[in-house]
Amino acid sequence: MSMVKNSLGRLVPTEVNGRSVRPFMGAHADAGGGMRYGGSIPAAARYGNKLLADLDAAIDACEIRDGMVISFHHHLRNGDYLVNLVMDKLAARGLKDLVLAPSALFPTHGRLAEYIESEVISHIEGSMNGPIGRACSLGKMKKSAILRSHGGRYRAIQDGDLHIDVAFIAAPCADPHGNANGVNGPSACGPLGFALADSLFADKVVVVTDHLVDFPCHPWSIEGGNVDFVVRIDSIGDPNQIVSGTTQITRSPTRLLIAEYAARFVKESGIMTDPHFSFQAGAGGVSLAFVKYMSDLMREAGVAADFVRGGSTKYMVGMLENGLTRYILDGQSFDLDGVRSLRDNPCHIETNPFVSYDYHTKGCFAQLLKVSVLGATEIDLDYNVNVNTHSDGWLLHGIGGFTDAADAEVTMITAPLVRSRLPIVLDSVTTVTAPGEMIDVVVTEHGIAINPRRQDLLDRLKGSTLPLKTIEELRDIAARMSGVPEKPQFTDRVVAVIEFRDGTIIDAVRELVPPE
Amino acid sequence: MSMVKNSLGRLVPTEVNGRSVRPFMGAHADAGGGMRYGGSIPAAARYGNKLLADLDAAIDACEIRDGMVISFHHHLRNGDYLVNLVMDKLAARGLKDLVLAPSALFPTHGRLAEYIESEVISHIEGSMNGPIGRACSLGKMKKSAILRSHGGRYRAIQDGDLHIDVAFIAAPCADPHGNANGVNGPSACGPLGFALADSLFADKVVVVTDHLVDFPCHPWSIEGGNVDFVVRIDSIGDPNQIVSGTTQITRSPTRLLIAEYAARFVKESGIMTDPHFSFQAGAGGVSLAFVKYMSDLMREAGVAADFVRGGSTKYMVGMLENGLTRYILDGQSFDLDGVRSLRDNPCHIETNPFVSYDYHTKGCFAQLLKVSVLGATEIDLDYNVNVNTHSDGWLLHGIGGFTDAADAEVTMITAPLVRSRLPIVLDSVTTVTAPGEMIDVVVTEHGIAINPRRQDLLDRLKGSTLPLKTIEELRDIAARMSGVPEKPQFTDRVVAVIEFRDGTIIDAVRELVPPE
Repeated sequence: MSMVKNSLGRLVPTEVNGRSVRPFMGAHADAGGGMRYGGSIPAAARYGNKLLADLDAAIDACEIRDGMVISFHHHLRNGDYLVNLVMDKLAARGLKDLVLAPSALFPTHGRLAEYIESEVISHIEGSMNGPIGRACSLGKMKKSAILRSHGGRYRAIQDGDLHIDVAFIAAPCADPHGNANGVNGPSACGPLGFALADSLFADKVVVVTDHLVDFPCHPWSIEGGNVDFVVRIDSIGDPNQIVSGTTQITRSPTRLLIAEYAARFVKESGIMTDPHFSFQAGAGGVSLAFVKYMSDLMREAGVAADFVRGGSTKYMVGMLENGLTRYILDGQSFDLDGVRSLRDNPCHIETNPFVSYDYHTKGCFAQLLKVSVLGATEIDLDYNVNVNTHSDGWLLHGIGGFTDAADAEVTMITAPLVRSRLPIVLDSVTTVTAPGEMIDVVVTEHGIAINPRRQDLLDRLKGSTLPLKTIEELRDIAARMSGVPEKPQFTDRVVAVIEFRDGTIIDAVRELVPPE
Repeated sequence: MSMVKNSLGRLVPTEVNGRSVRPFMGAHADAGGGMRYGGSIPAAARYGNKLLADLDAAIDACEIRDGMVISFHHHLRNGDYLVNLVMDKLAARGLKDLVLAPSALFPTHGRLAEYIESEVISHIEGSMNGPIGRACSLGKMKKSAILRSHGGRYRAIQDGDLHIDVAFIAAPCADPHGNANGVNGPSACGPLGFALADSLFADKVVVVTDHLVDFPCHPWSIEGGNVDFVVRIDSIGDPNQIVSGTTQITRSPTRLLIAEYAARFVKESGIMTDPHFSFQAGAGGVSLAFVKYMSDLMREAGVAADFVRGGSTKYMVGMLENGLTRYILDGQSFDLDGVRSLRDNPCHIETNPFVSYDYHTKGCFAQLLKVSVLGATEIDLDYNVNVNTHSDGWLLHGIGGFTDAADAEVTMITAPLVRSRLPIVLDSVTTVTAPGEMIDVVVTEHGIAINPRRQDLLDRLKGSTLPLKTIEELRDIAARMSGVPEKPQFTDRVVAVIEFRDGTIIDAVRELVPPE
């Protein structure tokens, strides 16, 4: 495997699973060029009754063979049944070397690790969590895993870097033509945007629903004109598990303090009262607390955001219903209030990674966003951020929308300075997910560091009572609290690459030598 | 120019303007294959402020050169200002040999005939009406015009047969990112679906609006991620002319009788009370009357349609509001009631030619439709239909959605048997727009002919009191009423081709030798 240093000095391969790749050259260096993948041309007359009896009939109809790329979306989150259902059937058929291309996996999919061991799955292109990530770290995948952000996944599919043979789309509501949405039916999960690229570009598209309605199913987040087959099964997911585990505001005083600092930072920077305020925050306990603090500050100041970006939660829905934002632009629902609001409130708008995150567009929402509040496992002195591996070397997380959302005007990392007795700020991150040039502020309970590239923010915060520090000071405080952890031991083998949103390789993850 | 006979026996070219084309082989013979046009890959970082000062700045930014393909949509109908505004500026710049690719033209665009004479415009790919069609008939275009149906236009763009250099999209409402819709603002015209393919596949996309709103403009029928530039001008159209001229039910007893026969045919065939009834009718006086009669029959029988397909009119809106249909699936608004309903009623749904009409999809709405009611200029004994030329040889009409909507389960032509002293049913049509195999019923005031291919309909109508006749009988009645008109004289030169929805050539239009 030929390796090259990218612009961050990381040694990355020039070829991944036989495909040539370019090294990362800067967050905005890629200038596009070339042609998107068009997809094959079907003929409408070949499509009559698309309804098939069951999943087996769909697998037969798709003529799945060894080595094919099979994709899924993750809107049903930890409640998803479909990935396991389909992969069990493909394994039972004796298929080998499949490439799994989900938009994300969850703990409920942990048993896929067995299919990696048994080579039913050769590798994963998408995100990896928990046991799947551990299997990858231990070198169990035959080929290199490829981790992509949500926007990067859309880009890879549209550009033809990731060619999907068969997409299985779990659909809470669908009609026999294949029109589908996520807002109606017993398994309603909110948006279906993560499946959009799959529907547009996969050779075969199977919509699987437990709530079949008469044509036309509307809204049609997935359009029947892109769908080959429709299958009804008893249940596509467990509605109680569909929502995120973390839907309560943290009670940890440390995390509440971090969230409060972050909200105050936004206010004191003046961004909150700029015209066209907007922000994005996720579903973790800190993020939820940030939304609440931010709401309080906005209410006091009498300002409303033009929009807030989900994942949506009841706290964001509260902002919409109380006039603190004109719109929610929602890529995924993290709780049932989000699902209900998306279904019922015309100002709660479904989005997808094309409009929100895709770098190979004529602009996307991420770059229109004022403030993005994101988490991390490590941050280094160059402000490079790691969200994939832990300091002990295990690959345990996908990228999610991190690298995409980091394109906001002000990107803030919120994290406790020490977590599980490991420092979060350190000299150099184990793996670079996003380059420091995209990261503007690091907020911890022990202080807030502003990236020196952002002199404008340093100027705006002059005289603030917030505990401003340098990143080196944060590193030192963390080191004093936890000591400097031992470095993990890796072999030379690249088990996964971290693909930047433009398709370049920002870092490689190597096989871990597990500690004794 | 090499010519070949297609499956209807029409002599058609094998090459049009240097591009190889296939002869028509049957309505459903095309099996797809090959790849769609992907479009070029942009980079989001290259897109910041898209707002330009005026149209000239946009023309500069698009670097328009001689020979480029320039496109427009026609949702503003006869009220459109933009086509003339832009073409005047391109002509004033001395540009030559431009290809005009509108989804349709209207009488207000008649002065473009001058630009054809002066070779600013080399030819038109799209539809042609009135003076433009006359210029084409007289051989004034340097190259062959290409007429396509709405679905055929989408197909040609997605497949790369029609590559658009610059698309100008008149947008009644837009934001600075380029998100746009047709339902808000002083020039609201309803859907913007005819511009969808242009936005997705053109090299440069310019959104031109007279109603600029803060981001996010929603609904976003046109997505900002596909838009290069946004321009605000004083007015994109005359709201009083945006709606169709024909929005009143005909008072002609002949036409009322035709509409009544058509509605009774639908009822007596049993289709109306089949599960999942649906129909499509246009905006002409007969069509409006058909909708009214159909509504009466449905109300009496206590049945509701699953959906009706627009162009929407106040009569269709009445059906929705009175529970006679669950949905309107609307491709264009023909009156302001249609615009209002689309904006306010969640069961009035905007569609576009991809979902509705495109043959190179995995199925489209046209083939899900039960009944389609369409007009024609000529029908022959093989049930072939002409909607483009008149019996005197002049090319005066575009295809509209004719060939696409003719894919319904039952396609009915409604027409007076004689019009302007010319018979409508005759031995052979001047030009074939759609093959007889797609046409099931011809309804005239003197009788109704069922295509012998439809034995099922002949069986269902047995014993009906409707005046059933053979097509030959209708031809004879017409001939007795009007005489057989003299055939027009043509040269051998092909001035236009009629492209079928699958991209094959169904007929050629030749240069007319105008009568003395």
